[in-house]
Amino acid sequence: MSLLVTGSIGIDTVKTPYGVSENCLGGSAVYFSMAASFFSPVRLVGVIGADCPFDLAKVFAGRNVDLAGLEVRPNSKTFRWAGSYHENMDDRTTDCLELNVLAEHPPTIPDSFRDSRFVFLANTTPKLQLELLDQIQSPLFVAADTMNCWIQNHLADLKMLLKRIDCLIINEDEAKLLSAEFNLIKAAQKVLDMGPGVVIIKKGQSGSITCDAKGHKFILPAYPTTEVTDPTGAGDSFAGATLGYLSQTGKTDFQTLKTAVAYGTVVASFTIADFSLHGLTSITRNDIDKRLETLQKLTRF
Amino acid sequence: MSLLVTGSIGIDTVKTPYGVSENCLGGSAVYFSMAASFFSPVRLVGVIGADCPFDLAKVFAGRNVDLAGLEVRPNSKTFRWAGSYHENMDDRTTDCLELNVLAEHPPTIPDSFRDSRFVFLANTTPKLQLELLDQIQSPLFVAADTMNCWIQNHLADLKMLLKRIDCLIINEDEAKLLSAEFNLIKAAQKVLDMGPGVVIIKKGQSGSITCDAKGHKFILPAYPTTEVTDPTGAGDSFAGATLGYLSQTGKTDFQTLKTAVAYGTVVASFTIADFSLHGLTSITRNDIDKRLETLQKLTRF
Repeated sequence: MSLLVTGSIGIDTVKTPYGVSENCLGGSAVYFSMAASFFSPVRLVGVIGADCPFDLAKVFAGRNVDLAGLEVRPNSKTFRWAGSYHENMDDRTTDCLELNVLAEHPPTIPDSFRDSRFVFLANTTPKLQLELLDQIQSPLFVAADTMNCWIQNHLADLKMLLKRIDCLIINEDEAKLLSAEFNLIKAAQKVLDMGPGVVIIKKGQSGSITCDAKGHKFILPAYPTTEVTDPTGAGDSFAGATLGYLSQTGKTDFQTLKTAVAYGTVVASFTIADFSLHGLTSITRNDIDKRLETLQKLTRF
Repeated sequence: MSLLVTGSIGIDTVKTPYGVSENCLGGSAVYFSMAASFFSPVRLVGVIGADCPFDLAKVFAGRNVDLAGLEVRPNSKTFRWAGSYHENMDDRTTDCLELNVLAEHPPTIPDSFRDSRFVFLANTTPKLQLELLDQIQSPLFVAADTMNCWIQNHLADLKMLLKRIDCLIINEDEAKLLSAEFNLIKAAQKVLDMGPGVVIIKKGQSGSITCDAKGHKFILPAYPTTEVTDPTGAGDSFAGATLGYLSQTGKTDFQTLKTAVAYGTVVASFTIADFSLHGLTSITRNDIDKRLETLQKLTRF
């Protein structure tokens, strides 16, 4: 089925204990699209400035990513982010953040994208996520991400968004903040009470917890990899593969969602193996399927 | 088969956000024995002072825990610990620690216990763990726990111990400290290189990682419970059920070890549901088996 993502396209500079990657391609919509494209055609909606050094058509060549929703603004500058990961690879410091084109008016969703059935609203202000969602005619499954600053400062908008989406994908700290609960199972229930039928809580190196409003739960560890070079994009790749698999199957039942989350977990483990998109561009669907099988074996008893 | 544990018997005072439990029964050997007794007969080795208000024969009545190795020293005082858990239930502050009888000479292992096949050396100085181990004739599977202060200050002794045991059961921070590695899979490999054939890394609310020297791995999340009243004894209960199940089956292959670790996970989830031993004394083996089945369903995809 059709899968649409709205999110950022950025120029990243990333420092980790394993090296530095300067001015590389990043952004939530880019990681999401690359990960999702292993499973389903993707429709990308995002904006860049004239300074963007990357040819996205080339980046996604052969990958069935429709760039009709990519807007290039000639008088704007592309979003930039620079960050440094600490030695534990969990914590990071933002060294520089230039919103640039992201601080302007949002992109318009092309008419040809408005019939999209699966939708991912990557992290941005909840108000903007709502505006983007309003442009989709009759989505089947809408997932969204959010972050601490929107929970703290735009909670009313976020609560409106939560009533409109099917699935919230957030990390552990965000779930605790949003629910005011330390226990993640209780936190998940409180988030479900706010509206979405599904919540997926990402725990980084400790995997994820998926809960739905019918009481289903799925607890999955992270794929145990020793190859961790750059965690940037792990969360958006996770979301990309998860939604990508749902869109591939056209189903949203809990059994399908479990497999989707497992694919998300595995694809994220490839993302973090290298800087920028290299961990994803160097693999095939077959590599992903093999690692999924390994993850299954590693967790079965 | 025969399962022996050496460890502490203590008088605990525990504060958590859910209440206070004053002067209750605690200690590694006590939690271990109670958990293990659901699976196998247990031989307990430990010392208390004349002041100990608990009748351990009554505590373990009907549970097949042999107290021939319990030494009561008339002129000594029992080990005491007081701690407060923070709101996240992960971090805790030690409010008071009185080693008392634990600072004296160690207990002797009774002749009738020296043929034990499965052995757990609960946390104490590695030198003492070695002395205790020397008294066992021909153990089949020896597991041990340790902690930060022995890693930092008694590393030579600990390395000697690691060459003598089959399995080290430690928590995440201890594994990182011992291996000087942040990545837990790399950390596990480094610990295996120090001697034990198996290492189990406990990650609290995020489950555990089990690795052996043959390259087998098992990644299991924690049981997702909302009932968390007092985490004291979770680690020793985990070890108790794990070793208890191995002793019950008499096997130590990786497939059996996986089930054992799953039992450890489930029994620990009962321990933390209430103060002191109440979480364990209020359940049956049937409750444990049911929760094991649930854990299996929650993690399968």
